[in-house]
Amino acid sequence: MSGFVSFVSAGPGDPELLTVKGAARLCEADVVLYDDLAAGPVLDLARAGANLVAVGKRAGRPSSRQQHVSRLLVDYAATGARVVRLKSGDAGIFGRLEEEIEAVHAAGIGYEIVPGVTSASVAAAQAGIPLTRRQTSRRVQFITGADVSGGLPADMNWSALADPEATTVVYMGRRTFPALAAKLIAQGLAPTTPALLAESLGHPEQRIVRTTIAGLAELLADAGTATAASVILFGALAPGHG
Amino acid sequence: MSGFVSFVSAGPGDPELLTVKGAARLCEADVVLYDDLAAGPVLDLARAGANLVAVGKRAGRPSSRQQHVSRLLVDYAATGARVVRLKSGDAGIFGRLEEEIEAVHAAGIGYEIVPGVTSASVAAAQAGIPLTRRQTSRRVQFITGADVSGGLPADMNWSALADPEATTVVYMGRRTFPALAAKLIAQGLAPTTPALLAESLGHPEQRIVRTTIAGLAELLADAGTATAASVILFGALAPGHG
Repeated sequence: MSGFVSFVSAGPGDPELLTVKGAARLCEADVVLYDDLAAGPVLDLARAGANLVAVGKRAGRPSSRQQHVSRLLVDYAATGARVVRLKSGDAGIFGRLEEEIEAVHAAGIGYEIVPGVTSASVAAAQAGIPLTRRQTSRRVQFITGADVSGGLPADMNWSALADPEATTVVYMGRRTFPALAAKLIAQGLAPTTPALLAESLGHPEQRIVRTTIAGLAELLADAGTATAASVILFGALAPGHG
Repeated sequence: MSGFVSFVSAGPGDPELLTVKGAARLCEADVVLYDDLAAGPVLDLARAGANLVAVGKRAGRPSSRQQHVSRLLVDYAATGARVVRLKSGDAGIFGRLEEEIEAVHAAGIGYEIVPGVTSASVAAAQAGIPLTRRQTSRRVQFITGADVSGGLPADMNWSALADPEATTVVYMGRRTFPALAAKLIAQGLAPTTPALLAESLGHPEQRIVRTTIAGLAELLADAGTATAASVILFGALAPGHG
C-alpha cells in the first residue's frame, strides 16, 4: 500500500485561478498540507472528511519547519493516502519545492507536480498589462527580495537586474525594496523607471499602485512590518488602462 | 450595446491545465479567436453555436495578420458579443498581447486578462523539477529565441543570460538554440551547463530530453524545420527523477 504526493500549485488564492487539474486533485485528496498563503477559499474544494494540515510560514519568519513538512509528507503518504501538498502561486517558482521532492523520492514515494499561475502573471493581468513587450521588453525575470534571513540577498546579479529593457518581478520583496531600488539606481537604472506594486492579489482587498522605482522605495520605506502578500514589477512596463 | 473581450490564457493545450476562470469564459463566449497553438481539446469547451475563428500563426512565419486580428476583436465586440481571445500559455508572456489591448481600448471596448500557466512552469513540472532552487538558482528568466524575422535577437543581455546561477527558459528557441548556445559559451557559460528540451507539452507525443547546452545545440543543429512547440530550460537545474 503506497500513497502518492501531488504538489499542487494553488495560484494566488482565488479558486477561479486554480487549474482544473489542481481543483480535481484537491477534491480527491485524503490529506492536504497547506501554507498560510494558500489557505482560504481554495481549501473549501477539499472533500468533507479530508485531513487539512496547516504547515505554513510567511516570508521573513524562521523556516525551521521545512524538515517537519517533509516528514509529514512522507508519513502521510506511507499510510497509502492521496496527499496534496498545496503551494501558493506556481509551486516551481520560489516554492521551496526541491527539499520536499527529494524527501518524497528518497522514501520511494511517487509524486507529480501540478503547475499553476504564478503571482507575476496574476499581477500583470490584474493591472491590465502583459509581462513582455514585443519591442521593448523581451526578457522577463523573477527574483525574491528576501533570503532565508529575511534581508536582501547580497550576491544578486545587479547588471541583469538594472537592465531597463527587461521586466523584473520581485516576489516577497516588499520590505527590502527600498534597499533594492537604491542598489539598482546606483547601478544606473533610472529612478523614474516604471514600477508597480500589487498587494493581496485575488483577494477582495487587492490593491495595485503604479509609480516609479524611486516612488515605490519611498512608499515602502514607511511600510514597516505589514505582511500583505505582494509582488513588485519594474522595468519597461506597458502603460495599461487600469 | 457593447461587447467585452476576455484575453484568456489557454495554458499548454491540455484542458486540465486551463484555469477554472478560463474554462468558464470559454463556455460563455459568443466568439472565440484562437491561434494554432491554442487549438485542440481546449476549444471543445466552447458552447455549441459559438463562432470559432482561427487567426493563428506559428513562430517563424510572417506575422502580417496582427492588424487583422485586432480589427476582428473590435468588430466582433462592437456587435455586443462576448469575445474570448484565446492565447497559448500565459497571455502576458510572449503573447503579443499589447497591440490587441491597445486596439480594444482605443475602440472604447472593455477587456480583462485571465492569467494562466506559462510553458516554463509546465515544462519544469513535467520534468519533475522546480524552476527555482533555494541556494543555487534564485533568479529565473524567460526569453524568446526568435525575433520577428525568426532569427536569434541581436541585442540580448548576454551577461544576464550567461549567468550559471540563474535558470533561463527559452520560448520559441528550438531553431536558434545552436547559435544561442555558441554565444553563451563564448560569454563563459560552461558547455556542460544542464539543459532540458520539452516538446509538445501536454500533448500525447510530449518528449523531454535532459542534456547539456552543448549537447542540446548538437541535437538541434540537425533538427531542420521541425515545428513542434517547444521550450528549453538551462542553468542550475535541479536533478529531478523523471
